[in-house]
Amino acid sequence: MSIDSVAIIGLGLLGGSIGLAVAEHLPGVQTRGFDADPEVRSRASDRALVGEVCDDIVDAVRGADLVILCVPVGAMGMAASAMKPGLADHAIVSDVGSSKQGVAQELERVLPGHTVIPAHPVAGTEQSGPDAGFASLFHQRWCILTPPDGCDHARLAELRGFWEALGSTVDIMDAAHHDLVLAVTSHIPHLIAYTIVGTASDLEEVTRSEVIKYSAGGFRDFTRIAASDPTMWRDVFLSNRDAVLEMLGRFSEDLTALQRAIRRGDGDALHDLFTRTRAIRRSIIEQGQDDARPDFGRGDHE
Amino acid sequence: MSIDSVAIIGLGLLGGSIGLAVAEHLPGVQTRGFDADPEVRSRASDRALVGEVCDDIVDAVRGADLVILCVPVGAMGMAASAMKPGLADHAIVSDVGSSKQGVAQELERVLPGHTVIPAHPVAGTEQSGPDAGFASLFHQRWCILTPPDGCDHARLAELRGFWEALGSTVDIMDAAHHDLVLAVTSHIPHLIAYTIVGTASDLEEVTRSEVIKYSAGGFRDFTRIAASDPTMWRDVFLSNRDAVLEMLGRFSEDLTALQRAIRRGDGDALHDLFTRTRAIRRSIIEQGQDDARPDFGRGDHE
Ligand SMILES: NC(=O)c1ccc[n+]([C@@H]2O[C@H](COP(=O)([O-])OP(=O)(O)OC[C@H]3O[C@@H](n4cnc5c(N)ncnc54)[C@H](OP(=O)(O)O)[C@@H]3O)[C@@H](O)[C@H]2O)c1
Ligand SMILES: NC(=O)c1ccc[n+]([C@@H]2O[C@H](COP(=O)([O-])OP(=O)(O)OC[C@H]3O[C@@H](n4cnc5c(N)ncnc54)[C@H](OP(=O)(O)O)[C@@H]3O)[C@@H](O)[C@H]2O)c1
Repeated sequence: MSIDSVAIIGLGLLGGSIGLAVAEHLPGVQTRGFDADPEVRSRASDRALVGEVCDDIVDAVRGADLVILCVPVGAMGMAASAMKPGLADHAIVSDVGSSKQGVAQELERVLPGHTVIPAHPVAGTEQSGPDAGFASLFHQRWCILTPPDGCDHARLAELRGFWEALGSTVDIMDAAHHDLVLAVTSHIPHLIAYTIVGTASDLEEVTRSEVIKYSAGGFRDFTRIAASDPTMWRDVFLSNRDAVLEMLGRFSEDLTALQRAIRRGDGDALHDLFTRTRAIRRSIIEQGQDDARPDFGRGDHE
Repeated sequence: MSIDSVAIIGLGLLGGSIGLAVAEHLPGVQTRGFDADPEVRSRASDRALVGEVCDDIVDAVRGADLVILCVPVGAMGMAASAMKPGLADHAIVSDVGSSKQGVAQELERVLPGHTVIPAHPVAGTEQSGPDAGFASLFHQRWCILTPPDGCDHARLAELRGFWEALGSTVDIMDAAHHDLVLAVTSHIPHLIAYTIVGTASDLEEVTRSEVIKYSAGGFRDFTRIAASDPTMWRDVFLSNRDAVLEMLGRFSEDLTALQRAIRRGDGDALHDLFTRTRAIRRSIIEQGQDDARPDFGRGDHE
């Protein structure tokens, strides 16, 4: 068996980028796609995000060797149910959801007996929709697969090969551990960014227009993250609740300690923390996950 | 009177950028500079950050029409005392410190009878030192002046003209209000970024190497801010304590409310907040304080 045809369900940032990346890196592989929104389907056709845009989810998945669900995590179960009548027995069913335990349970429940291998490409931007995708989104980024116990090694290797062909490096992880790691590296940063932007919008002493004008002092970076899709992120927080609350508790404790240091004028405690945090930045740059230049080197995604 | 010679004290990111910007935009104006660190002075000479690098702070300021202190806010008073013997009676003394009330009080105390007009260019990067500066740092950025009561209008106009020549738009503000606004748009974002990076470094369940590998999910943006200079930021938090603690209190309340919404599974509350925060992002982009492109458009600073 090998992957000769791929069905992509949900043609937004992730689904569109996968379609474009397959066209670029795996030109022999056929792609079909579906999105619940007719306007998204129409834009997806215009941009040729997939070889064929179908008006029916069942047609889109029929005969596909690999089906990738690229919808918000709260919509995974519904999409899986809807496509089931067209799903080939041999198909690998995967997804790109930002949380994995809840999605894995939902897909196993809806598609018993099928080969389900959840995945999460750790790559994205704050933009969404059918105009947001681009073929190089996955270059030099990690893709985490969370195969269930007893997963067939050959099928896992096929899915790994697929993501590597798109430019990713693949890691295998337990779904629960994935959710804890991503709570720290992605979910909590988003939650904090949403919060501070919300706080800043609601102040009486400082106007919104002042917040906007002087945002170059650091705040603007948070607004970028806080401009991410509301539905996607609502679903992530609802589905990864336990890990998010756990990590949020740690963060709040640390923030309280820092608050106390400021109140007491304990400059040494502040200086110590501010010095330790630089080391992580250096490693991130060394490992190619960000760039030291003022433009972050993200221009290479254009 | 007009500004024909400028003395820059502290030749790091800000001081170096001012020197280079004067050379580019005001080629008729002479610049001299001093830094406490001999290695910084030597690099400053190599890069020609100012016309003349002096080994003595008193020589650097002698006869200057404008003296700009570009040292950490905790070092402003010491630098002002040290330069006092060389300071001309007619000189405008200004600075670029990130907090303004404390600096203003300190400079008034050390330099009674002199014309002191504190300033804060809201422009920066996470890098510091004599190699970090560049001439276009202030382009399209705000510079806030916080003149004391009774400040001479003509001198204020001169300083305004100087910053406008460097590419900034100038705003006049009360020092206390400045400190509140910047607590929101700059100081709290930095504090939060330092905290989350610290929290992530200290976990037992998630390794540092995992945090680094999967940082592209949002975390890496926080590490950039949390790589800022420890001394500079320690001084900012110590000198702007009251406004920082006040704003931190608001942020913590809002975070607690969001935490409760996640615990209760209140998806509507999450979706509402995540939708509201997008509007601010749009305004920031419209007003040229950030860019919608994936590289943030910061390439124009190179
Ligand atoms: N954005 C990121 O940075 C990122 C990174 C990694 C992983 N992810 C994950 O990728 C998935 C997709 O995110 P995205 O950023 O690509 O979102 P997106 O751009 O909003 O695309 C999602 C698309 O799925 C459609 N959709 C929703 N429910 C559907 C259903 N039942 N059947 C068919 N189509 C449906 C949506 O249509 P409507 O607009 O009509 O709802 C939308 O067009 C999410 O699970 C997210 O967690 C995102
Ligand atoms: N970085 C930003 O994004 C930014 C933005 C706006 C405003 N500011 C403000 O600008 C000021 C300078 O920040 P920066 O980023 O330019 O820092 P920087 O790159 O570290 O430069 C500061 C320089 O001042 C020197 N210095 C310290 N004490 C001194 C003294 N008493 N006399 C003479 N030189 C002394 C330092 O030498 P040593 O290394 O030996 O200490 C260092 O070379 C700070 O007040 C900061 O709040 C910064």
